[in-house]
Amino acid sequence: MKNVKCARCIICGQEYEAAADITLCSCGGVLDIIYDYEYIAAQVNRATLAANRDFTMWRYRSFLPIRENSPAPPLRVGWSPLYSSARLAEIIGVKYLFIKDDGQNPTSSLKDRASAVAVVKARETGANTVACASTGNAASSLAGNAAAAGLSSVIFVPSRAPAGKLAQLLIFGAKVFSVEGSYEDSFRLSAQAIEKYGWYNRNAAINPYLMEGKKTVSMEIAEQLGWEVPDYVAVSVGDGCTIAGVWKGFKDLRAAGLIYRLPRLISVQARGCCPINRATKTGRPLEPMAENTIADSIAVGRPRNPDKAIKAIKESGGITVEVSDEEILQAMALLGRKCGVFGEPAGVAGTAGLMKAAKEGLIPKDARIVSIVTGNGLKDTASAMKTAGQPMRIEPDISQLEKLLDNM
Amino acid sequence: MKNVKCARCIICGQEYEAAADITLCSCGGVLDIIYDYEYIAAQVNRATLAANRDFTMWRYRSFLPIRENSPAPPLRVGWSPLYSSARLAEIIGVKYLFIKDDGQNPTSSLKDRASAVAVVKARETGANTVACASTGNAASSLAGNAAAAGLSSVIFVPSRAPAGKLAQLLIFGAKVFSVEGSYEDSFRLSAQAIEKYGWYNRNAAINPYLMEGKKTVSMEIAEQLGWEVPDYVAVSVGDGCTIAGVWKGFKDLRAAGLIYRLPRLISVQARGCCPINRATKTGRPLEPMAENTIADSIAVGRPRNPDKAIKAIKESGGITVEVSDEEILQAMALLGRKCGVFGEPAGVAGTAGLMKAAKEGLIPKDARIVSIVTGNGLKDTASAMKTAGQPMRIEPDISQLEKLLDNM
Repeated sequence: MKNVKCARCIICGQEYEAAADITLCSCGGVLDIIYDYEYIAAQVNRATLAANRDFTMWRYRSFLPIRENSPAPPLRVGWSPLYSSARLAEIIGVKYLFIKDDGQNPTSSLKDRASAVAVVKARETGANTVACASTGNAASSLAGNAAAAGLSSVIFVPSRAPAGKLAQLLIFGAKVFSVEGSYEDSFRLSAQAIEKYGWYNRNAAINPYLMEGKKTVSMEIAEQLGWEVPDYVAVSVGDGCTIAGVWKGFKDLRAAGLIYRLPRLISVQARGCCPINRATKTGRPLEPMAENTIADSIAVGRPRNPDKAIKAIKESGGITVEVSDEEILQAMALLGRKCGVFGEPAGVAGTAGLMKAAKEGLIPKDARIVSIVTGNGLKDTASAMKTAGQPMRIEPDISQLEKLLDNM
Repeated sequence: MKNVKCARCIICGQEYEAAADITLCSCGGVLDIIYDYEYIAAQVNRATLAANRDFTMWRYRSFLPIRENSPAPPLRVGWSPLYSSARLAEIIGVKYLFIKDDGQNPTSSLKDRASAVAVVKARETGANTVACASTGNAASSLAGNAAAAGLSSVIFVPSRAPAGKLAQLLIFGAKVFSVEGSYEDSFRLSAQAIEKYGWYNRNAAINPYLMEGKKTVSMEIAEQLGWEVPDYVAVSVGDGCTIAGVWKGFKDLRAAGLIYRLPRLISVQARGCCPINRATKTGRPLEPMAENTIADSIAVGRPRNPDKAIKAIKESGGITVEVSDEEILQAMALLGRKCGVFGEPAGVAGTAGLMKAAKEGLIPKDARIVSIVTGNGLKDTASAMKTAGQPMRIEPDISQLEKLLDNM
């Protein structure tokens, strides 16, 4: 990998060769992939991208830690739509609002970006099986991307995962273990099994390559906005890897000379499970929390990788916001009604937080804001039905219809 | 519309001006939009498309019956991925197989293509409300596309529609009437209400413009294959509008000189509801059937627009295949395991029919085949669970895992 210098511990600074199967530093710290931005800048710039007709995340291949000869995996991941929404902006009380609908990925979540990289790295190590613990989307994206690439997958899910996500895993042919207990219990069991069986490890908190896949969402945002970097990017936060990836994407672009400034991050967590925001605000070490929220994909009471996330929020001069389940459901309905975008609870939490921050006057009125919707609402229709209302039952009789419409 | 000559009845040949709100011919026949292909050929060719960076269905705007100054609606519809799948081809016993995953549209089905056109035509008539009767996907796509464009939608669904589809409708803010009765009952009530309230009619069986949106799937297939037209295209058939649209797409491309030959269609219906295939085979007038299949989106016992479909299948020298629910579920699992594509039952019925046709020797071994997956499996996870299997429940204990893996 000519574009990668090494992997460096974000705690102690120890450097490692960027082998395909590295995980944590010997000190327990998370590794960060360090690039040669001069080399990257010689490979890619705004003009080469303008001429590039590969409208997937792999158009940013020069920024990705994969071998030059590694083929991109089969599924079409990335280049999700960025919608400008004047109507939602008006309701929220901001001037320029863009919705990045990452639920439009092959397995319907942003996690496809990380899993696509995992599949490439697994092949580089020669592994035939990839494994992870996940509340759902990391797992379903791994299962789908692995299946398309001809790899096996083993998934550990907490028993609370919603049916839509389990159906995906099973249809993609994953071996699925439903673990009685919390996300933490699933995570620990997966780590033991990966160690024992030599599977490729797709746990984003440990595998430093996955965040690198996620960063492509920011590269797309910048390019889709004609390289006009937004002032704020709002995103929901669970394990912390996604917001860290979002930040790295913008930083990488700046380091390679494609953009000249950086956005501020809006880190949104559920009020019932917000350990990263709490640690960011207090400056004290992270303390685990219970996992009390409808937004299951970000219900991570004991995040394994908070350091990069907290650093990213602080470095960006970011804002932390906590939202109630009610606020999440309200944002879900608004995104549906005003933008035609249907997100799952965790997927729309970022928008809910943005709404709250705007209402509280934390964001200048003329700011340009991007809100990332990280997962598709079809993954959890039961939650959607809590805010969607019910259809009106009717006999096939026009006079009944007239009466109902008159009363609406 | 400089590219459109008129609308012509496919039964009696009567011609009409192509006004935005035309429906059926006075004789009851369905209208077909007639184009000026010389004009179109002067606007678009392989080279102009190669230079076109609009990767949505609107790249084929020259072929679409919309006014020159009508803006494209907001959601990103079309340009869904076309995957080559050597592994699935081998299992099915054919040489070249491509899966067109149209579940990767904004509301997760091919119907977005028709609804996007409906939204444009509604705006052209000045209507603020669009309405339809639908077993689900036409409705959810209309609701989503209307919401994004700032229009209201009114939807009539049969009471059997699965939860995922209802959740979408309601989240998109549609007024939803759940009609006690069959699809036919919903259809009749919607027609009465549209007549009474002056809403824009998005019933594909009556509105001749909708099929024109659907035809873009074929244009994408041809372009994505480098203008090498496939030998066969397999697609599931319910109301008949989709297969008719698929056929028109290829015919339009040939008429404008972008391709030189046409594929043969594989028309796949559920064994429990196959009135179009039956009428095609027997040559007798269509007789309604019961709606007995898991594939709810193609469970149309009394299709309103069979004529175009039957004509398309015959003109193409096509094949008709009926599949059982079991065969549908088997195709669903295979697409998931071998391609990483998760389709709903009706969405994968085309692939199920292709498998059956290949097994029965109806397709030459060296044929190049495209199978269109018309809708995302997340829309109906309950059906998926019938074939997906169940996760293995486990305590967070490595020794339990070892035992389970040993027994697999």
